[in-house]
Amino acid sequence: MSGVDQLVDGVLAGDTRSLARVISIVEARGGDAEAILSRLAKHLRGRPVIGFSGPPGSGKSTIIGRIGEYLKGNGLKVAVLAIDPSSPFTGGAVLGDRVRMVSISSTPGVFIRSMATRGARGGVVAYVRAVLRVLDAAGFDVILVETAGAGQTDVSINDVADVVAVVVTPDIGDSIQAIKAGLLEIGDVYVVNKADDSRSSYTASMLEAMLGRGGDRPVVLRTVATRGEGVDVLAETLLRKWEQLKSGGGLQARRRRQTIAEVAALIMEDFRVAVERFSTDEEFVSEVERLIAEGFDPKVVSRKMMDSILEWMKKVKI
Amino acid sequence: MSGVDQLVDGVLAGDTRSLARVISIVEARGGDAEAILSRLAKHLRGRPVIGFSGPPGSGKSTIIGRIGEYLKGNGLKVAVLAIDPSSPFTGGAVLGDRVRMVSISSTPGVFIRSMATRGARGGVVAYVRAVLRVLDAAGFDVILVETAGAGQTDVSINDVADVVAVVVTPDIGDSIQAIKAGLLEIGDVYVVNKADDSRSSYTASMLEAMLGRGGDRPVVLRTVATRGEGVDVLAETLLRKWEQLKSGGGLQARRRRQTIAEVAALIMEDFRVAVERFSTDEEFVSEVERLIAEGFDPKVVSRKMMDSILEWMKKVKI
Repeated sequence: MSGVDQLVDGVLAGDTRSLARVISIVEARGGDAEAILSRLAKHLRGRPVIGFSGPPGSGKSTIIGRIGEYLKGNGLKVAVLAIDPSSPFTGGAVLGDRVRMVSISSTPGVFIRSMATRGARGGVVAYVRAVLRVLDAAGFDVILVETAGAGQTDVSINDVADVVAVVVTPDIGDSIQAIKAGLLEIGDVYVVNKADDSRSSYTASMLEAMLGRGGDRPVVLRTVATRGEGVDVLAETLLRKWEQLKSGGGLQARRRRQTIAEVAALIMEDFRVAVERFSTDEEFVSEVERLIAEGFDPKVVSRKMMDSILEWMKKVKI
Repeated sequence: MSGVDQLVDGVLAGDTRSLARVISIVEARGGDAEAILSRLAKHLRGRPVIGFSGPPGSGKSTIIGRIGEYLKGNGLKVAVLAIDPSSPFTGGAVLGDRVRMVSISSTPGVFIRSMATRGARGGVVAYVRAVLRVLDAAGFDVILVETAGAGQTDVSINDVADVVAVVVTPDIGDSIQAIKAGLLEIGDVYVVNKADDSRSSYTASMLEAMLGRGGDRPVVLRTVATRGEGVDVLAETLLRKWEQLKSGGGLQARRRRQTIAEVAALIMEDFRVAVERFSTDEEFVSEVERLIAEGFDPKVVSRKMMDSILEWMKKVKI
């Protein structure tokens, strides 16, 4: 039995060590990643991927930890994937957060994994989705994904999650700009956390007003995650939303859109690698220099070189 | 005579209105851009492009304004290209800066242009370099380029300028991290501006120590740009550095490297456009969906689709 077979069998049997190893291979774009993913493909279960987004300090990690505990208490196997570089799961924590992280980590039955995307050159969304597929095939019933707020990560939560919760704090009422900057488009559920703050009902009302009316309007909930208040309602709301989306066909549409974006990102990544290799190739460099010396504008040169790059890509099957 | 001919003739004759129009076309990647750039190519003079980088508030714009005045006083035609979104030249100014900008703008003989790069999808470096070539062909003797500090713009100053001045404030001595974060690699000259601050000699010494010893070590200078102090020495140092680079062959090497990067960026940009078009193409989308439904991993799918994208690109000559 090959190493790949052993790892895949391990993942399917629920072995945490095999799972961690496989995720590392997929994350590092290792040579075996493709073989592993291809073998796991027939074991996909399509379980809910629930995303959490929001500004640093809004309490996303605490909420995720509480939801993890709640779902586990209901007999579900839960995985957490943190792709927020400032997440306590990822290690970028202040002391209080780290304490909470330990409490989650020590919750048996909740698998926690962080993923570094900072500095990745491209195609990050494809690698996040690949890791999510590994977790899905590994038999987790619910996968929780944490990202930083809009514009703060390389991955938009809507590109990787089925259903999205946006977590804000009561004081966001003062900074409507932050809300307007993309937050209103991305959430299925809005959470005003730290709702023991007196401003929380104002903030919730304002959010509801901004989200408008209608049957499909996102829900606004309030939580005090540190004390676990409102977290069970939030968890149930998110799962219900997921079931509704699934039965209504919306889930398939979202996943289809994500898959196309993922394939496009993978193709772009191949192009990027090809151009990078090509532009350090001696023949390419001297041909470019020759054309420039002849007085061609770089735009013309780029078009002249395109054919040879395309030919080369066909040949090397990059 | 075609519109393109007229515009090109206008630029070569020193007509500011034609120049502004041509830059707008090049910046907007307009349909005539290539024809214009091709015609200007034989009029390139290869004059100095001097870059200024540094944190917001370090006084880059004031320094550039003063240097512009100084060079103009020496009979040189000067152009300023601001690609820093927070630059007063670009309009993102506090009141004090705007006052200074007006004083520069009203200096006849200094052509000032800003370029928006924020939100551009890719290939920005190629468009900045194209605008710089327009300015060079237009007959300016020196071109000054302003960018924000490292990591704050889409364009690295070393990819577009021949010689680079890094401008810092005396209080940077307190934040060695900021200096370490890439600043030490990019400059030919380091400027401690606002040098009437008592910390400036400490900061200058610290910079000198960090830059090390040796003949090629960057120079550290001090200026009080608001009063014009040290600006003439700075201008002469930058021009001398440029002449040395030119006679030593270093200039050709830098420009060659930039040209290769520019052509690579243009090729990537074409790929990006192609993939974007392709991923909204109905045939592509349904083929991807068919393969995913058959159980192929997206990475395998992306490779299967690559051939048809390459074929298509060859055919449409994107």
